[in-house]
Amino acid sequence: MLDRSVAEALDRDDPLALCRERFHLPVGGIYLDGNSLGPVPRAVPPRLRRVLEEEWGKDLISSWNRHGWIDLPRQVGEKIARLVGAGAGEVVVTDSVSINLFKLLAAALELRPERRVILCESNPFPTDLYVTRRLLELRGESFELRQVEPEELPAALDRDVAVLSLCHVDFRTGRRHDLAALTRAAHEQGALALWDLSHSAGAMPIGLEAAQVDLAVGCGYKFLNGGPGAPSFLYVARCHQQKARNPLAGWLGHRDPFAFASGYEPAPGVGRFLCGTPPILSLAALDAALEAFEGVDLAELRRKSLALGELFLERVKERCAGQGLEIACPEGEERGSQVSLRHEAGYAIVQALIARGVVGDFRAPDILRFGLAPLYLRYIDVWDAVEQLRAVLESGEWREERFLRRGVVT
Amino acid sequence: MLDRSVAEALDRDDPLALCRERFHLPVGGIYLDGNSLGPVPRAVPPRLRRVLEEEWGKDLISSWNRHGWIDLPRQVGEKIARLVGAGAGEVVVTDSVSINLFKLLAAALELRPERRVILCESNPFPTDLYVTRRLLELRGESFELRQVEPEELPAALDRDVAVLSLCHVDFRTGRRHDLAALTRAAHEQGALALWDLSHSAGAMPIGLEAAQVDLAVGCGYKFLNGGPGAPSFLYVARCHQQKARNPLAGWLGHRDPFAFASGYEPAPGVGRFLCGTPPILSLAALDAALEAFEGVDLAELRRKSLALGELFLERVKERCAGQGLEIACPEGEERGSQVSLRHEAGYAIVQALIARGVVGDFRAPDILRFGLAPLYLRYIDVWDAVEQLRAVLESGEWREERFLRRGVVT
Repeated sequence: MLDRSVAEALDRDDPLALCRERFHLPVGGIYLDGNSLGPVPRAVPPRLRRVLEEEWGKDLISSWNRHGWIDLPRQVGEKIARLVGAGAGEVVVTDSVSINLFKLLAAALELRPERRVILCESNPFPTDLYVTRRLLELRGESFELRQVEPEELPAALDRDVAVLSLCHVDFRTGRRHDLAALTRAAHEQGALALWDLSHSAGAMPIGLEAAQVDLAVGCGYKFLNGGPGAPSFLYVARCHQQKARNPLAGWLGHRDPFAFASGYEPAPGVGRFLCGTPPILSLAALDAALEAFEGVDLAELRRKSLALGELFLERVKERCAGQGLEIACPEGEERGSQVSLRHEAGYAIVQALIARGVVGDFRAPDILRFGLAPLYLRYIDVWDAVEQLRAVLESGEWREERFLRRGVVT
Repeated sequence: MLDRSVAEALDRDDPLALCRERFHLPVGGIYLDGNSLGPVPRAVPPRLRRVLEEEWGKDLISSWNRHGWIDLPRQVGEKIARLVGAGAGEVVVTDSVSINLFKLLAAALELRPERRVILCESNPFPTDLYVTRRLLELRGESFELRQVEPEELPAALDRDVAVLSLCHVDFRTGRRHDLAALTRAAHEQGALALWDLSHSAGAMPIGLEAAQVDLAVGCGYKFLNGGPGAPSFLYVARCHQQKARNPLAGWLGHRDPFAFASGYEPAPGVGRFLCGTPPILSLAALDAALEAFEGVDLAELRRKSLALGELFLERVKERCAGQGLEIACPEGEERGSQVSLRHEAGYAIVQALIARGVVGDFRAPDILRFGLAPLYLRYIDVWDAVEQLRAVLESGEWREERFLRRGVVT
């Protein structure tokens, strides 16, 4: 039996505790939805003020050079590179995750022209599936999407597979794939490995280069805290950059964008995967947001993330037993940076928790999701959140009409 | 022979004169590059402050509903619809112009499945060409890009053409196509008409619906003043919405995005052309920027734009004769909302003008471009700009080393 002082002690000893000061956090609440939308990093508002007043406001069009707007996609990419274990010149920030996935899947098919299969798991993030199916349809009838259960992935890899395309951490269950092992398995069959890092980047070390990952995409507004709809990042391993081709060929991916040449010559590196003019306000916000990771040891970040999850699950087992909750996420290393629970009244329970200031979210049909962002969450937050969960369940207050009514999506 | 009081009188009588107050304009300069990046509308900074402090800052994830983020792409689309003469539910704001062009060209090929040709002019905006060629390559060998000189377009339309894809106003010369006539010519051959309105939206009435235009895209950061890299808009005529399919199928174009269903069902209207999560900071800035058009009569806007251009050209003829300048834009109704001149030392002349506070831009090989945004420019601005141009030419100061050195692109 623990008491809350245990959580307080963990916070006192937390080497990341000071990072919490780098964020504006909602007063009086516990925010466990940073895996959906990270909070406002303190560096963002002053940066946006500068962009508005000094750059766009005073220097207008000349800001593309004078204030380096034109370099931002690559510059922000370099900051993210450290967080995902990529090398210099392997990451760029642009467009949305869906669009970047389209680009890299199309590029993968062209890098393996004799192969016809994209291999995914049976129930990935839906957008990833929509994008993949539609791309294959555009490419014509000879292409095929192969979907199997996660445990069948290695066996489903064969010499027809052009690319294995997976989400590193599952958005529902928080299950984390063994990125290095699956990448190796893909390579053994001559296939490429493409990872969607949306639910892992910014919460753990990823080691793309060490695992020789070929291609990756990820989200700017979850654990990277770049703001609503922040641009996405994409990674292309150096060894593929020369041959990989962007299916969305726009002026910013051109070797010399300002030549306005009628022929398209791709930029030499990962920059060829840029397309149109980037949304500078959103991109500058992401750039500033990444300052919150300065000096952060990613191994430490992962250690704390796992410890937060462990505490959450322990407390759920102790305090919420017999309330119909089921643990839906793996325990230990196989878990990403979220805790998922199952309850048939999951939707209403999440709403009732939000009314008490504990913000998690719900994913159909029955998943309660709690994102554990180790940069700004405290152990006492986890402790208190579970106490609130217990209160919601014990009181039965989630049965109130206002919580049962669907429509408000959080 | 005119004198400056003529310009002053025109300003006194200008029914749009008050709109100038809706912008933060650089002090002591004349900004003639609003066709590249519009200035900061006064409504933008307070709106961004609200998004940062109240929405993202306090309400975090719940802002998607509470503050209507989820509706912004359609809501901003409705504001732009009025400016381009589209109906309700025909315009949505998302992604970049390049990406939206890709979407609509792909959709057009699927709407005319028995046809194999995209018809463009020989020298359009380069990105439009890159996007088109790459799309055709993805679709396979049986597709063809046909490029002809502008005056040969009607004759080049035949029953093989799936879609006629044109820029309404040419970015170099400012020449404006007859959108209604060319759309009619396309329809007579059973082809669709797709217009890139990047250099016309926000500067003149366009009348998409009246001309029965099928598809269109346009830019948010030029005459719409939405900020650097503001999201782009796209238009799909109501009659095609049921059948038109987005090649970039993402969760936000789904009929029920929050169901996270594994099957893709497109949203019923133009919303199916959304893809990933929109960059809310940039999108909110564009939304606020459009307030500058409130109550503005578009016919009046066009009248003033043409009058500004006429004054510019008249003054150039009178004041810059014999200086090697050539007029590169059409006179009268065939001109968009810019003036283009030609000079072999165009680059240096533009740099020397910028040093004097008159900001235009240069497009290779020899075009001096001056955007005339009728919402905030005065007749005296045009008058004074040409006086500065004369001074630069007469003094020969553009020959100074610092102006000849390439590299700084504005």
